[in-house]
Amino acid sequence: MTTPTAPSHPPTPERFFNAMNAYQLTEATKSAIDLEVFTAIAEGNTTAQTIATRCKAAERGVRILCDFLTIHGFLTKDEANYGLAPDAALFLNRHSPAYIGSATGFIITPHMREVHACLTEAVRRGGTAIGNGTLEPENPDWVKFAEAMMPLMFMPAQLAAAELLKGGESLKVLDIASSHGIYGISIAKVNPDAQIYASDWKNVLEVGVKNAAAMGVADRYHPLPGSAFETDLGADYDLVLIPNFLHHFDIPTCTDFMKKIHAALKPGGRAAIIDFVPNPDRVTPPTAAAFSMMMLATTPSGDAYTQAEYESIVKDAGFTRAELVPHIGISSLIIAYR
Amino acid sequence: MTTPTAPSHPPTPERFFNAMNAYQLTEATKSAIDLEVFTAIAEGNTTAQTIATRCKAAERGVRILCDFLTIHGFLTKDEANYGLAPDAALFLNRHSPAYIGSATGFIITPHMREVHACLTEAVRRGGTAIGNGTLEPENPDWVKFAEAMMPLMFMPAQLAAAELLKGGESLKVLDIASSHGIYGISIAKVNPDAQIYASDWKNVLEVGVKNAAAMGVADRYHPLPGSAFETDLGADYDLVLIPNFLHHFDIPTCTDFMKKIHAALKPGGRAAIIDFVPNPDRVTPPTAAAFSMMMLATTPSGDAYTQAEYESIVKDAGFTRAELVPHIGISSLIIAYR
Repeated sequence: MTTPTAPSHPPTPERFFNAMNAYQLTEATKSAIDLEVFTAIAEGNTTAQTIATRCKAAERGVRILCDFLTIHGFLTKDEANYGLAPDAALFLNRHSPAYIGSATGFIITPHMREVHACLTEAVRRGGTAIGNGTLEPENPDWVKFAEAMMPLMFMPAQLAAAELLKGGESLKVLDIASSHGIYGISIAKVNPDAQIYASDWKNVLEVGVKNAAAMGVADRYHPLPGSAFETDLGADYDLVLIPNFLHHFDIPTCTDFMKKIHAALKPGGRAAIIDFVPNPDRVTPPTAAAFSMMMLATTPSGDAYTQAEYESIVKDAGFTRAELVPHIGISSLIIAYR
Repeated sequence: MTTPTAPSHPPTPERFFNAMNAYQLTEATKSAIDLEVFTAIAEGNTTAQTIATRCKAAERGVRILCDFLTIHGFLTKDEANYGLAPDAALFLNRHSPAYIGSATGFIITPHMREVHACLTEAVRRGGTAIGNGTLEPENPDWVKFAEAMMPLMFMPAQLAAAELLKGGESLKVLDIASSHGIYGISIAKVNPDAQIYASDWKNVLEVGVKNAAAMGVADRYHPLPGSAFETDLGADYDLVLIPNFLHHFDIPTCTDFMKKIHAALKPGGRAAIIDFVPNPDRVTPPTAAAFSMMMLATTPSGDAYTQAEYESIVKDAGFTRAELVPHIGISSLIIAYR
């Protein structure tokens, strides 16, 4: 053991120490949502004492939680007064129309904790350590996902629908792994004559059908229950949406699936893949690149694919060309043309 | 819901998304230590394939893990070759004398996961949601702590011993919550005539006694088993070490305890508190400030105290003055003079 000699910036164990404790940030974020801390601050409660009263919690607990959220950039602190960072104000205040706090309901499920607690075994195997991970048929976690994630997907679904409208109206639209339904519903909203066919597990489709009704497009929303790999998906589509789906599978499976999609499209039709697309280095941008870890922990062979990999997948499946539109929320949009 | 209008930097849900998934970093760090990924790279294995062979893991799993570790700054990546960041090379390579990877054994115990999974309840109560948290008598986790954390504490213990030597030699030394023993042992190494009295739970003291023997100071190392609050700690000490102990308790308890320490010191003797000391704002520096969260989750009323709070504690306990020495590892050293 040598003591550090360079007085300026010797290596410290700080990064390692903080990484070991990183799970505290998951728990603190969930607690802040559960207790409505962000909402309390948005309502004008800015001290630990007034936030604690509003949230029915202990002042000491709230003070420590709010300091922690400040350290991690969700809050500001000026003397004893907390404020909301812009992203917390927009997305984590329950009164905001863009509130996405319900996403904690899916991301931190017991199953997600369990598969991650076996991550060492997943690295050894090169895939999830528990069965098929999240890919079990009729997995009830996908109902939770559909219920929890719709708000988080609202903005990217709107962005994708607006982007796809630039290429012309779509009349017959298929939404793969439709989940909450928001991608298909958003297309229906900007294409008043579009008929939406939604493919997902039967238990999950109920959530999408309910959302379609709430958003006034029930009469143009048609569920196709069952595995998207096995169901007859129909034909002559102008547009097939494939949001956050292909990352669950390996490249040959994606390619075979895209052949099925190619066959379901009209000539000139488009497939719209919405997904996390890292750069070729696979370590930037950080959020898209890190999504590979989620796929290692939760699927047998899924991944976050690069633009080149998606281009190769869709070309091998018979598509003529593909283009990438970045910044659809945290994701990217790949448009593949039949 | 409005779509963002500012094209440059609209708020995005990215911080929230990453915070919810922060537990992945805990698991990935633990997996990398368990599989000896850092050691494999230090040995010259730089591609996913060669690292996988060395670590007996799948190439795909290793590639995703190493990309993730690169995103989080532990590794570098140049084309397909991974390298170690300076802190990873020094602290996480098993062949390095400064290896601290064993610390995962304490920080990520089932008990630690469990108390953090109840964090919302802890915020409501203002203290740990499960019993006395880590403060249960003879808690076996403290044996794990003693075994796992000694390497992580080696450097700060050396720094503290060197700093304290500047104030003169110490002959009779008491080490409170001695744990692995490294703080007292380090004093013994630089004060060849010092006798070290080590106070901790009986089961924990066995680890310190073993380490004292391994480091050649067994004949000057004297265990004092039992609660430091209840044990007769002896008298006429030149120096009392209090490393990472006071943060477990509230201020009145700390003050009462420091009175007991004051009584055990010779006139002119020193108490050396080693602990996380945040700035008055309680949100900087980040690692010391964030330690409050660990105390909220794991203790009834512990905290990371500021310099002013420590000064008040030791003055109320009868000490004449206190001085702070920062950068004892991630911690600070407070020297209180009787």
